[in-house]
Amino acid sequence: MNKEELKVLLEGIKNNKINVEEALEKLEDLPFEDLGFAKIDNFRELRVGYPEVIYCEGKTVDQVRDIVKYMITKNNNILGTRANEEMYNAVKEICIDAEYNKLGRTITIKKKELPDTESYIAIVAAGTSDLPVVEEAFETAKILGNKAIKITDVGVAGIHRLFSRLDVIRGAKVVIVIAGMEGALASVIGGLVDKPVIAVPTSVGYGANFGGLSALLAMLTSCSAGVTVVNIDNGFGAGFSASMINQMK
Amino acid sequence: MNKEELKVLLEGIKNNKINVEEALEKLEDLPFEDLGFAKIDNFRELRVGYPEVIYCEGKTVDQVRDIVKYMITKNNNILGTRANEEMYNAVKEICIDAEYNKLGRTITIKKKELPDTESYIAIVAAGTSDLPVVEEAFETAKILGNKAIKITDVGVAGIHRLFSRLDVIRGAKVVIVIAGMEGALASVIGGLVDKPVIAVPTSVGYGANFGGLSALLAMLTSCSAGVTVVNIDNGFGAGFSASMINQMK
Amino acid sequence: MNKEELKVLLEGIKNNKINVEEALEKLEDLPFEDLGFAKIDNFRELRVGYPEVIYCEGKTVDQVRDIVKYMITKNNNILGTRANEEMYNAVKEICIDAEYNKLGRTITIKKKELPDTESYIAIVAAGTSDLPVVEEAFETAKILGNKAIKITDVGVAGIHRLFSRLDVIRGAKVVIVIAGMEGALASVIGGLVDKPVIAVPTSVGYGANFGGLSALLAMLTSCSAGVTVVNIDNGFGAGFSASMINQMK
Amino acid sequence: MNKEELKVLLEGIKNNKINVEEALEKLEDLPFEDLGFAKIDNFRELRVGYPEVIYCEGKTVDQVRDIVKYMITKNNNILGTRANEEMYNAVKEICIDAEYNKLGRTITIKKKELPDTESYIAIVAAGTSDLPVVEEAFETAKILGNKAIKITDVGVAGIHRLFSRLDVIRGAKVVIVIAGMEGALASVIGGLVDKPVIAVPTSVGYGANFGGLSALLAMLTSCSAGVTVVNIDNGFGAGFSASMINQMK
Amino acid sequence: MNKEELKVLLEGIKNNKINVEEALEKLEDLPFEDLGFAKIDNFRELRVGYPEVIYCEGKTVDQVRDIVKYMITKNNNILGTRANEEMYNAVKEICIDAEYNKLGRTITIKKKELPDTESYIAIVAAGTSDLPVVEEAFETAKILGNKAIKITDVGVAGIHRLFSRLDVIRGAKVVIVIAGMEGALASVIGGLVDKPVIAVPTSVGYGANFGGLSALLAMLTSCSAGVTVVNIDNGFGAGFSASMINQMK
Amino acid sequence: MNKEELKVLLEGIKNNKINVEEALEKLEDLPFEDLGFAKIDNFRELRVGYPEVIYCEGKTVDQVRDIVKYMITKNNNILGTRANEEMYNAVKEICIDAEYNKLGRTITIKKKELPDTESYIAIVAAGTSDLPVVEEAFETAKILGNKAIKITDVGVAGIHRLFSRLDVIRGAKVVIVIAGMEGALASVIGGLVDKPVIAVPTSVGYGANFGGLSALLAMLTSCSAGVTVVNIDNGFGAGFSASMINQMK
Amino acid sequence: MNKEELKVLLEGIKNNKINVEEALEKLEDLPFEDLGFAKIDNFRELRVGYPEVIYCEGKTVDQVRDIVKYMITKNNNILGTRANEEMYNAVKEICIDAEYNKLGRTITIKKKELPDTESYIAIVAAGTSDLPVVEEAFETAKILGNKAIKITDVGVAGIHRLFSRLDVIRGAKVVIVIAGMEGALASVIGGLVDKPVIAVPTSVGYGANFGGLSALLAMLTSCSAGVTVVNIDNGFGAGFSASMINQMK
Amino acid sequence: MNKEELKVLLEGIKNNKINVEEALEKLEDLPFEDLGFAKIDNFRELRVGYPEVIYCEGKTVDQVRDIVKYMITKNNNILGTRANEEMYNAVKEICIDAEYNKLGRTITIKKKELPDTESYIAIVAAGTSDLPVVEEAFETAKILGNKAIKITDVGVAGIHRLFSRLDVIRGAKVVIVIAGMEGALASVIGGLVDKPVIAVPTSVGYGANFGGLSALLAMLTSCSAGVTVVNIDNGFGAGFSASMINQMK
Repeated sequence: MNKEELKVLLEGIKNNKINVEEALEKLEDLPFEDLGFAKIDNFRELRVGYPEVIYCEGKTVDQVRDIVKYMITKNNNILGTRANEEMYNAVKEICIDAEYNKLGRTITIKKKELPDTESYIAIVAAGTSDLPVVEEAFETAKILGNKAIKITDVGVAGIHRLFSRLDVIRGAKVVIVIAGMEGALASVIGGLVDKPVIAVPTSVGYGANFGGLSALLAMLTSCSAGVTVVNIDNGFGAGFSASMINQMK
Repeated sequence: MNKEELKVLLEGIKNNKINVEEALEKLEDLPFEDLGFAKIDNFRELRVGYPEVIYCEGKTVDQVRDIVKYMITKNNNILGTRANEEMYNAVKEICIDAEYNKLGRTITIKKKELPDTESYIAIVAAGTSDLPVVEEAFETAKILGNKAIKITDVGVAGIHRLFSRLDVIRGAKVVIVIAGMEGALASVIGGLVDKPVIAVPTSVGYGANFGGLSALLAMLTSCSAGVTVVNIDNGFGAGFSASMINQMK
Repeated sequence: MNKEELKVLLEGIKNNKINVEEALEKLEDLPFEDLGFAKIDNFRELRVGYPEVIYCEGKTVDQVRDIVKYMITKNNNILGTRANEEMYNAVKEICIDAEYNKLGRTITIKKKELPDTESYIAIVAAGTSDLPVVEEAFETAKILGNKAIKITDVGVAGIHRLFSRLDVIRGAKVVIVIAGMEGALASVIGGLVDKPVIAVPTSVGYGANFGGLSALLAMLTSCSAGVTVVNIDNGFGAGFSASMINQMK
Repeated sequence: MNKEELKVLLEGIKNNKINVEEALEKLEDLPFEDLGFAKIDNFRELRVGYPEVIYCEGKTVDQVRDIVKYMITKNNNILGTRANEEMYNAVKEICIDAEYNKLGRTITIKKKELPDTESYIAIVAAGTSDLPVVEEAFETAKILGNKAIKITDVGVAGIHRLFSRLDVIRGAKVVIVIAGMEGALASVIGGLVDKPVIAVPTSVGYGANFGGLSALLAMLTSCSAGVTVVNIDNGFGAGFSASMINQMK
Repeated sequence: MNKEELKVLLEGIKNNKINVEEALEKLEDLPFEDLGFAKIDNFRELRVGYPEVIYCEGKTVDQVRDIVKYMITKNNNILGTRANEEMYNAVKEICIDAEYNKLGRTITIKKKELPDTESYIAIVAAGTSDLPVVEEAFETAKILGNKAIKITDVGVAGIHRLFSRLDVIRGAKVVIVIAGMEGALASVIGGLVDKPVIAVPTSVGYGANFGGLSALLAMLTSCSAGVTVVNIDNGFGAGFSASMINQMK
Repeated sequence: MNKEELKVLLEGIKNNKINVEEALEKLEDLPFEDLGFAKIDNFRELRVGYPEVIYCEGKTVDQVRDIVKYMITKNNNILGTRANEEMYNAVKEICIDAEYNKLGRTITIKKKELPDTESYIAIVAAGTSDLPVVEEAFETAKILGNKAIKITDVGVAGIHRLFSRLDVIRGAKVVIVIAGMEGALASVIGGLVDKPVIAVPTSVGYGANFGGLSALLAMLTSCSAGVTVVNIDNGFGAGFSASMINQMK
Repeated sequence: MNKEELKVLLEGIKNNKINVEEALEKLEDLPFEDLGFAKIDNFRELRVGYPEVIYCEGKTVDQVRDIVKYMITKNNNILGTRANEEMYNAVKEICIDAEYNKLGRTITIKKKELPDTESYIAIVAAGTSDLPVVEEAFETAKILGNKAIKITDVGVAGIHRLFSRLDVIRGAKVVIVIAGMEGALASVIGGLVDKPVIAVPTSVGYGANFGGLSALLAMLTSCSAGVTVVNIDNGFGAGFSASMINQMK
Repeated sequence: MNKEELKVLLEGIKNNKINVEEALEKLEDLPFEDLGFAKIDNFRELRVGYPEVIYCEGKTVDQVRDIVKYMITKNNNILGTRANEEMYNAVKEICIDAEYNKLGRTITIKKKELPDTESYIAIVAAGTSDLPVVEEAFETAKILGNKAIKITDVGVAGIHRLFSRLDVIRGAKVVIVIAGMEGALASVIGGLVDKPVIAVPTSVGYGANFGGLSALLAMLTSCSAGVTVVNIDNGFGAGFSASMINQMK
């Protein structure tokens, strides 16, 4: 409700076109319609079609099921991340369509199929051990309605493997790079492609890896411009940001 | 050289149209024309128009001037980051058009004016002390040909200041959020806008800030989806990535 | 009491000016009145009514039960924190009134009911996964005789949820803010209320969260004045400090 | 403006007691008066009398002077922290009443004298080197209208010095404990007083002190209940929180 | 395929010994055979005899078995590191010759026996608890065709034990030093031998050891020249680098 | 072999009492008897009576038993630290006199009873959860022949408990202070006694304790002179050093 | 003295069984005898002869001079550590006998010469760059009345240098080992001598040294028993603790 | 003194050619000639021709000059690292042949020219800012008698630059890789060459670089086998180890 609409409303009262109770009702809601908060709501309205996301770690099986039970009353797709099988089984009981990606630990419920984008997200990973994060990013990208292509096991230790897949990486609109250990893959790809690169450090490694710290710091200090970083093992976050970019017009 | 061209070449040999020495010479060069490396070069061709970037920190004044001297022979715009005034003066001597942003510590040389994008990058910052990083991001965005709008001093300690600027933030195609101390602004904006947010932790703060670590960790662990992070004080990196996204079609 | 006064007192006894009981009373308190220790004791006397607190982690089931067995001979309320169910069962055997908060992992024994304060403590939390810390803070506040109100799941990723509960938060005499990940909620609330805020970082999160470090550092470097911080996951400490403040006159 | 007032306003329009322009003007401001944002503003209104605070570090001398120049047009007291002498001199030029605490590095401008509270804040410090933080806390407490008493050089290495001052510490309504090195003073006082203790770790020390980390971690893990912590060297934050508590009724 | 072979191929076409289709097929693969990438391949060709290495941690039993199944079709030796017994059993089923070093957690498959080098690698370790890393380094060295001698339990706490074995250490061409706790052994040996020393910090220890950090930092800051360092517990990396050096001519 | 014995040997050659070959054999071994290394051995000879110590963590049950089996052939007392019950049972089978301290996780075998010292070591601990470290220190002190007195549960949160035991602490020749959390007890005792204090940080605590780091840093930066520190949870090290000091003459 | 005893005493006065002087004597000492404070005082009495110590860092020149001015009115020796030359000059003006050790940065004032002990403290250091810490430890030891011998430049990189001085090290009653970088010297000496070793990590080094952290962690995790550690660069602390041990009888 | 010489000595006694006193004297010195220590010395004898190395940081100008003054009396080459110009000038005064590498901060004095090796060390660096470390490594390699080739500015952000120099890198006998920021160059080269790679992390970078930590951790956790690491900025250490390997036969 902008200034002009407000004027119309007030004149409606003056001219007895609108009675006080009606006006009162409208104006009472004002903050939820036209202002800060309202925008928030509008904002969420616009997000209809977006999946509702549940971060399952640290929640009980009962909590996860109850949240899903509530969510499926709305018409959105649902994505549960960091879910274990027990959680999935509980969800499955109340929603037969729920699917589980064991490696990626995601539960997905598709209430409406989104048509995939034409452009695609390339999800590039260094090694086999990074696959759980790849899967989380992939499931996130998919349920958000993106075409996504996985290119795995192209770590820099054997850089020819990477070069042989460079075409498909360069063809993407946005690239997710997933790597543990020293995370060098992000810098190398950042230097080879002209698209936004979202780097995901993984906790793959041992010793001086310190739970993913080595890859995290390396990616943050990358000498290649165009690389931004999400939290260690955060496949979901990478998929979500990549989707925003991939769906830009 | 694609499969077809290769076939032609080989048949040329067979038919004695090309002699072995000539063919040998061509095939020897193969990898630099049609493959990995060639692609790298093509890739750089496409990037003509992009500014050449010099990270001045750790370089001597002479080194900076010499690099610029070489670069201006090419027809690109030039961006020098983390440059001190002495460096600027040395560059100014060889290139009268060089400009210096004292706060942002950038040298810019515009050899050709790029038309600004219609869409814009919002550069949002928490406090006055974050301004140097704001300026670095802004100069980067500008020289890459973007419209960019600065919204500063909207830290979460007085959140109404942020809300009064929310429209302009939401109108952007991509948002850069710059904050030191606890970096909460990134999460708050991440929860309020539906655009990619690039968060820049700054080293503003003291004590448990540990040179920007507090804001860095906070931004990486943001509870808002859609937030990616660059290195502490890395205004350039944020501006560069934001430009890639802002110029998407 | 100096040497001269002491001499006077003793001569008073000798001369029958002061009878033994009177002198006894004065001298008895001597070490406990005039010096550190006495004050300590007085202090503890004043604290009667306060619960005795047992930090159960790192203790054996037998140790916990034995400590409770001794404590219930005194007339105080008892609070055991970080207690597992096995400990509770052992305590239950010797004290039928013992209650267990499974989520908060607290054992409480109320030997005397304290009337709740009129003013209240607001316990605000960002997400579902923070609930165990909420419960620990709540049980601590309750057994210390405070009215306490829980406002949960109001993380900054959906800041409208927070605003819709702002009245009840602002109505409190002191506010406990519990958040993991980036802990931005503490700064946001600190900027919105004019009451002391006690921030509790939680270990909720993963990767760059480093066991709660991200929220801890963020809360310590909060840009909002009026925020103080306790240890990671320390719901008890927050509840205890908040009670001191809430019961001020 | 509550529902009732809103109704009166609307009926005023209807009855032609208020014309549309007047009503429009009032309603336009609505969000800043009666709602989310309005509460923020009301909140700030209530804070009249509170000093405006400028964190000077990372600002230029010009920026500090300009901020003060704007602030003194309002009728509030002003507190500048982490200010150097050059900043003070610049401020002094535009405001003759400005005072500088060299040790505490604070600039204070008292536009109106607040009557001191009856209850007092005890500011207890371990060593001589902690005095700058003591002074910052003291100036903050004073300009906020509190009675404050400094008890310094009572570190635990000579614990009898602490005990000889215990009475005055216990007489306070809230206690600020400032200590560097191992920060043990916070735990010791926390165990001796029954008042909220706000602990300020300082960067005093060397080696394994790591810029105040040792005292910070020690205070956060204090075995004494009732201790909350602010950032390293954050005398202002401690003074501000203590003032909130000291002025409680 | 070197220049000579290429010439032969081309002349084969010319002379109709090879038809175009056959040549095409071969040359299509050219980049993977003779040039940039080819060099990589040549490089790998040269490495024939080298074992294929699988880092088993973070892989499933099925993944490990499938990788081995593929590898044994080639004629190379195979080394699996960080393998558990379940993995070994799965591999054993498809390859009866697989051997398991329980302590070192390695699976080795020798398709061809390499003659040991004359010179040898000395693998020196401080304590009994370092033996798993010793065994990993030893198995790596052996399968790469090196003579290797283990000298264990010669930690600096009883330095005479080290001196009594100094001859055999000095006789080596390259020395691996494996130590946890404070890792002093690397510096001591570095000061006593005139050969390259590869230091392996181990995670043996507790408390301020922080998972091997103490030994890691100590070895990196060694006052003895000639010491280089690999990751914590990285026996494989040490064995691999030592093999390169030991086989130099 | 001292100078005198050497002279006798050489005269034996001169007088033909010993032939050259015999002398050669003896002198060849010289370095292990009389010199550098010999001194080491002498040193160890002097240490007869000292227990042999086995650090059991990271060793297998078989390794522990085998080491003990070898050691009991010598006439020394034996101390095993960080031993689990399975290890103890294995040792018990080959040595019926072996004793196990379950809390302290020590195995002790007394082949000869040492008379206790007259002076004693005070082992002071903050809380119940520190008891395992207390027991390890105590068992170490005992088997080395020291009188040792335990004073536990005297943490600074209730400092009167400490003062009531101050006499016995001050009566000691050396004091071990064991504390987790913020480790303040070391500084407080260091300021109250005039004896060497050996501080043992423990891993007791959570959150910002970071596995004992808070107490470790606090003890290292103690403001009380006369405090030295050993590794986190290192009761053995404290007991060993204290014994050296306690047995000084 | 409990309540009953106190009653008996008072009735003794009343009944003239005890005279006032006797009672006075007993009661007079009460607070100073039976409780903490008296003991503290007694303790300080015993310490007469000990130097007063001033940690000068973080103090102003005026503060240092004023503290010294007060101290020299008492008859004790004075030690100032971390003092710069300006401080020394100020002290020199009020006390002509003050001496300055430029390398060790100590000010010493000897009001009474203490006879040196017969036994001695060995102060062993790895390299030339550690000398400032050596000097601080040496000056501390001297002013406390100890014989002390410096053995420098015996780092483990050339271990024969250490062995050639082993006799004088072993002859000491207590050994201080000062080393930066990897700090291996502490472990090596700890394995060679049968005396308490006090290890001082220094901040000598660069990179992964992290301001002395590498040596600190290494010394804390030393594999040699009998080693305790003080803070980085804390020559004073080592000298003070060593003096306590050296003067034991 | 070897076995044969020993036999001669003993027979000399028997035959009265040497008297007992003379023999005694010789044999007393034995350990410094023939055994453990002797070997150390022999070892150093073998190292004649090696330069004497002085780490100048933390030393005074006088100390550096005095050490050089002593060293030039021996006939070895001399290398001073981390030397400033003032040190060089002082050295120049006593040794006219001294040379200074300003970028690498090395002083070199060549008393005898060593013929360069045929094989060479490749010193590869990522960026211009890494040049000081390149120079330190280069000077070290040269004075140790190695042929060394510098390949600089080949960071992974423009990987084609690296590929165009790959031949010269692969031609080396050992490769030093010097890189700051994320240090990815080490992994990439490690995957492309079949020679030992010595990685030197540099402190080039800012923010999350944490003084070289990011590159250090990245290099330690490299996914490429054959990479070992030295301390941050340690060009000397890399040059020294590389020399050992390059000079192997």
